[in-house]
Amino acid sequence: MGVQESLALDAAASKRPAPPASKSPDPPKPSPSEKQAQSSGRGSRSSGPTRLTAKEMAGRQRDISVSEFFAKNRHLLGFDNPSKALLTTVKEGVDNALDACEEAGLLPEIRVEIAQLDETRFRVAVEDNGPGIVRSQVPKIFGRLLYGSKFHRLRQSRGQQGIGISAAGMYGLLTTGKPVLITTRTAPKSAAHHLELVIDTKANEPKVKRDDEVAWEKDHGTRVEIELEGNYRGGQHSVDAYIRQISLANPHAKITFVPPKPETHGAEHVFERVTEELPPDTAEIKPHPYGVELGVLMQMFRDTKARNLRGCLTKDFSRVSGRIADEISEKAKVAGSRRPAEMSREEAERVHKAIRVTRIMAPPTDCIAPIGEELIERSLRGEVRADFYAAVTRRPSVYRGNPFLIEAGLAYGGELPAEEPVTVFRFANRVPLQYQQGACAITKAVTATDWKSYQLQQPRGGSPIGPMLLLVHIASVWVPFTSESKEAIAHYPEIIKEIRLALQECGRRVATHIRKRRREADEAKKHAYIEKYIPQVAIGLQEILGFSDPERDRVVADLTDVLERSRRL
Amino acid sequence: MGVQESLALDAAASKRPAPPASKSPDPPKPSPSEKQAQSSGRGSRSSGPTRLTAKEMAGRQRDISVSEFFAKNRHLLGFDNPSKALLTTVKEGVDNALDACEEAGLLPEIRVEIAQLDETRFRVAVEDNGPGIVRSQVPKIFGRLLYGSKFHRLRQSRGQQGIGISAAGMYGLLTTGKPVLITTRTAPKSAAHHLELVIDTKANEPKVKRDDEVAWEKDHGTRVEIELEGNYRGGQHSVDAYIRQISLANPHAKITFVPPKPETHGAEHVFERVTEELPPDTAEIKPHPYGVELGVLMQMFRDTKARNLRGCLTKDFSRVSGRIADEISEKAKVAGSRRPAEMSREEAERVHKAIRVTRIMAPPTDCIAPIGEELIERSLRGEVRADFYAAVTRRPSVYRGNPFLIEAGLAYGGELPAEEPVTVFRFANRVPLQYQQGACAITKAVTATDWKSYQLQQPRGGSPIGPMLLLVHIASVWVPFTSESKEAIAHYPEIIKEIRLALQECGRRVATHIRKRRREADEAKKHAYIEKYIPQVAIGLQEILGFSDPERDRVVADLTDVLERSRRL
Repeated sequence: MGVQESLALDAAASKRPAPPASKSPDPPKPSPSEKQAQSSGRGSRSSGPTRLTAKEMAGRQRDISVSEFFAKNRHLLGFDNPSKALLTTVKEGVDNALDACEEAGLLPEIRVEIAQLDETRFRVAVEDNGPGIVRSQVPKIFGRLLYGSKFHRLRQSRGQQGIGISAAGMYGLLTTGKPVLITTRTAPKSAAHHLELVIDTKANEPKVKRDDEVAWEKDHGTRVEIELEGNYRGGQHSVDAYIRQISLANPHAKITFVPPKPETHGAEHVFERVTEELPPDTAEIKPHPYGVELGVLMQMFRDTKARNLRGCLTKDFSRVSGRIADEISEKAKVAGSRRPAEMSREEAERVHKAIRVTRIMAPPTDCIAPIGEELIERSLRGEVRADFYAAVTRRPSVYRGNPFLIEAGLAYGGELPAEEPVTVFRFANRVPLQYQQGACAITKAVTATDWKSYQLQQPRGGSPIGPMLLLVHIASVWVPFTSESKEAIAHYPEIIKEIRLALQECGRRVATHIRKRRREADEAKKHAYIEKYIPQVAIGLQEILGFSDPERDRVVADLTDVLERSRRL
Repeated sequence: MGVQESLALDAAASKRPAPPASKSPDPPKPSPSEKQAQSSGRGSRSSGPTRLTAKEMAGRQRDISVSEFFAKNRHLLGFDNPSKALLTTVKEGVDNALDACEEAGLLPEIRVEIAQLDETRFRVAVEDNGPGIVRSQVPKIFGRLLYGSKFHRLRQSRGQQGIGISAAGMYGLLTTGKPVLITTRTAPKSAAHHLELVIDTKANEPKVKRDDEVAWEKDHGTRVEIELEGNYRGGQHSVDAYIRQISLANPHAKITFVPPKPETHGAEHVFERVTEELPPDTAEIKPHPYGVELGVLMQMFRDTKARNLRGCLTKDFSRVSGRIADEISEKAKVAGSRRPAEMSREEAERVHKAIRVTRIMAPPTDCIAPIGEELIERSLRGEVRADFYAAVTRRPSVYRGNPFLIEAGLAYGGELPAEEPVTVFRFANRVPLQYQQGACAITKAVTATDWKSYQLQQPRGGSPIGPMLLLVHIASVWVPFTSESKEAIAHYPEIIKEIRLALQECGRRVATHIRKRRREADEAKKHAYIEKYIPQVAIGLQEILGFSDPERDRVVADLTDVLERSRRL
C-alpha cells in the first residue's frame, strides 16, 4: 500500500506539544499569553499568531455547501472504507431502481454488474427496466445532494433524502476523478440519452461533461455507472449477502448479479422472482395532526392555500373532518374563520394544544405495503432449511404522526446452528440493513424480548441462542434512520414496542413447536423405556398370579396396546 | 400526556392492506395492474392513482434545504427526545463559548442557566466572557445551518460543522415557536447588541425579529437563550453529568451551573478552574499530501493561486519542500512548471500516485493541544477517591492525513465499585461524549484490549470488570464523528490502534500496582505464618541438638531477624 500505510511519526519530525502544566506543578505559572491577558485587563488578547479578535473571527465565517459537508463527513453516508463504499454504491443504485419501477407500476428487472479495474478500483453498473428519467432532470438527480421527489411527501419508498446516488457519484469522483455515466430512456419512441456528469462539490451543482443521444437496446429504463476506489469481499457485510437479502424482501423483483471475477466468484447469479405481483400501490398521505409540532404548524398556517383555519385543518391534514376542525377551533378559542396567515404564535399554540386533547382517528394506513406473512415465510423457506417457520404482519401503528408497520419472520431448527446467537435479518421499506446492528431499534427489541419464556437460551441483556433465524421488517412513510447511511433504526419507543409484539407472537409459536417436539421426544423415551419392561412385568405377574404362557403373552400384547393408544392421544 | 400518547389504532378505522399474496398461494394470480402491464407490453403502466410516468415524476423533483432535512431528521443532530434535546442545547452553547474564549486567548468563565417554564418547557441560557460576535455575523451564525469558521480549516476546536447552535435554535422554534435571543458585545467601548431571530427552515436563512442596542453589564461576551420542549433528568446522560465531565476535561474553565429548580436540584453549582493556564494556542495546518484523495487533489489544482505544480505542492500542502515537490513531479512524469489548472485527470492521477510512494514527513503537530498527563491525573483525583491513578498522553499520529492524539487516564481501587464493568469517560477535543457508547471507537478499543493480562477480569468481548474508571480523550484537527450529533468516534483503524496503545500503557501501570499489592498481601501472610512457627522450630532444634534455653532464644531472634531482612529485600 506504499509509504502512506506504514507511516509512523518520526521522533525527530514530530514537535510534540508539552502538556500544559507538565513542568509546573500546582499552582501552575501563567503562560506568557495569559500573563499578558491578565496584565492588560480582561479585554486584551494574546499576541500569539492565532488568537483572534471578534472582527478577525467574523472575517472567517463562511457558508459550507452540503456536498462539501458530506464529502468531508463521508462516513455519515456509508463511505467509511473501501468495502463499505462499494456496497453503499450498489445499494443506492438498487434502491433507486426498485423505487422507480414500483412507482411506475413495472415489475422490476434489475442488473447489477461489478467490474474490477485494478486492485482497488471498481466499476459498478446498475441497470433497470424502470420508467427512465426525463433528460432535464438527470443532472440534478445524479449531481446534486438534497434533491429529489421523495423527501417532501409522506409515502413509503426506499429512498427518502435525495442524497444517496449523488453521494455515491461524489465518492467516485473524489476517489477516481471519473464522472458518473447515465443512460436513460423513457419510452420506445423517445431517444435514449447518455450523460456524463460530475458534482461541483463547492457549489453542490452538477456539471455535465457529455450529453448525447445514443442507440440503446432497452425500450425504457436507466443505467448508472460509477467508478470508485473499493474493495470486494465476502461475509456478513458483502455485496453478495446484500443481493441475497434484497431479493428475500423483494420477491417480486428479478435481480441479476454479475460479480467482479466470474472465474473466482462464479458467473452471473440470477435471483428469479417468487411472485409476479407488485407490492400494493401505496398512497401519499397528508401529515396527521398528532405528529405536527408547534413550529411546523405555524409554518403550515403561513403557507396554506386555505382561506381560513377550518379549511386549513380539513384540507392540509389527514383525518380532520369539519366536525373535528370545529372541535379544535372551539377548544383553542380561535374562530374557524380566522385567516391562518394572520394568526399569532399564541393562537397557533392554543390550536396546537387543542389538537392534542382532541380525539382524532389514526392516520390512514393504505400508504403502507407490507411484504405479507405468506411471502415472508416463503422467502425464509427459500433461504434456509429449517423445521419450523412463522411470520407475523402486525397492524399499522403510529410514531410522531407517521404510520408504520412491523413484520417479523422466524425459522427454527434444521440446518441452523444450535449453539450460536441467532441471526437477525433487518429490513426497512424492503431494504436490508447490514451495518450498525448494535445501534438499531430492531436489535434493541430482540435483546429486550424474554426468549427464555419461549424455550430458548438467552444471556442477560443479549441475543437469544439457538438454531433460529429472525427477520424483522419495518415499513413506513418515513423510516427514522440513525444516520444518512440508513443502517439502523432510531430508538422510538412506539417502534420498539411494535417490534417486540411481533417477535413475541413469533416466539409464542416457536415455543409451542419446541414444547411439542420436546414432549414427543420425552414420550418416545418413556415409551421405549416402558416397552422394554413390559415382558418383565408380565413375567412377574405370571409368577405371582400363576398365569399360563399364553396368558402372559396376552398381558404383554394388552400392555403394549395400552401404551400405543396412550401415545396416540 | 393527553390523547396522543395513548393512541392505539382503532380496528374499524384502520384499513389494513392485504399482504400481496396472502389469498393466492403459489403461483399467485397476477393483480389487475400487473395484468394490464403484461397485456399491453412492457412500457404500459397501471391505471392506479399513484403509479407515475417519468414525466410525472420529473414534475415532483425538488430541492431540499439543509435545514428542512435536519428538521425532519432531527435525531441526527441529537434532538431525538426531550431530555436529549435539552442536553444537546446546553452542549452546543457551551462548546461555542469555550471555543470563542480560547480562540481569543481569554480564560473561559461560563454560566449555564436552565429555567423550567412549565412541565415540558425550558429556557436554556449560556453566557460567556468571550470576544463577542460582530453584529453583522449574528444572524447567520445562529440562524443558518452549515455556516461557520471552523469547517474549512484544519485546527483543533470543539465545533466543526457550523450546525450545532443553529440546530438548537431551530429545534426550539419547532417545538415552541419562540425565537433565539442573543446578546453580544465585542468591547467595552462598543455597544451591546440584542437580537431575536428565527430560522426560515425552507430557505435555511435567518429572519431577524428584533435588533436593538442595549445596556449590558459585561465588557465583552455573548449570551444565547433558547426556549424549547425538554425534559430535565438525572443519570449518566444528564446535564449535571455533562457539566461535571466538561469541567474535568477543561480544567482552565470556570463554569457556573444554575439548575432548573434550586429547591430540589440545589442552588448554583460553581466548578472552579484547576489551572490558570489556557491550553496551548494551536496552529491551523494545511492538508498533508497523504490524506488528499485524487478528486480533492484535482479540485486543489483547479483552485490554487500557484502558477505551477511545484508552487502548488509546496504552498498548499504541509511538509512538502522544494526537494519533495521535485521528487513527486519526477516520479509522476509531470513537469514542475506545469500549470495546475491545465492538468488533465491522468496527470493528476500520476501525481496522486507519486505522492503515495514518496517519503514525506508526518504533518506538524503543534496544531494539537492535549490536556496533559498531569492535569488528567489531577482531574481524576478530584473526581474520585481511588488507590492508584495513571495518565498517558500519546505522541500525535495521523489518520486520513489528519493529525490526532490520544490520551488516557485511569483510577483504580478506593471507593470504585469492585464487581461492575468499569466506567469509561469519553472525550473528543475536550467535549464529553455521553450517548452511543456502543458505536464509539473508544468503546471498541476498550473491549478489544486484553485486560486479563493486566490483572483484571474481563468477559469475552466485553468491558473489563473491576474498581476502575477510564478516561479517553482524542484531540484532532478533525474528529470523525459517527453522526452530526457528535456522540461517538468512527472506527478508523489508526485511531483504535492509538487508543489501545494508550490503554495498554495505563494497563501495564495498574497491573504493576495490582501485582505489588497482591505480593505485599501474600508476603504479609507468609511472614505471619513463618513468624508463628519460629518458636516451634527453635524448640525442635533444642530437643535435637540439646540447646540451652538462651541458645534456643538466640535461634528465635536470629530466625526472626533473617525473616525481617528477607522481607526488606
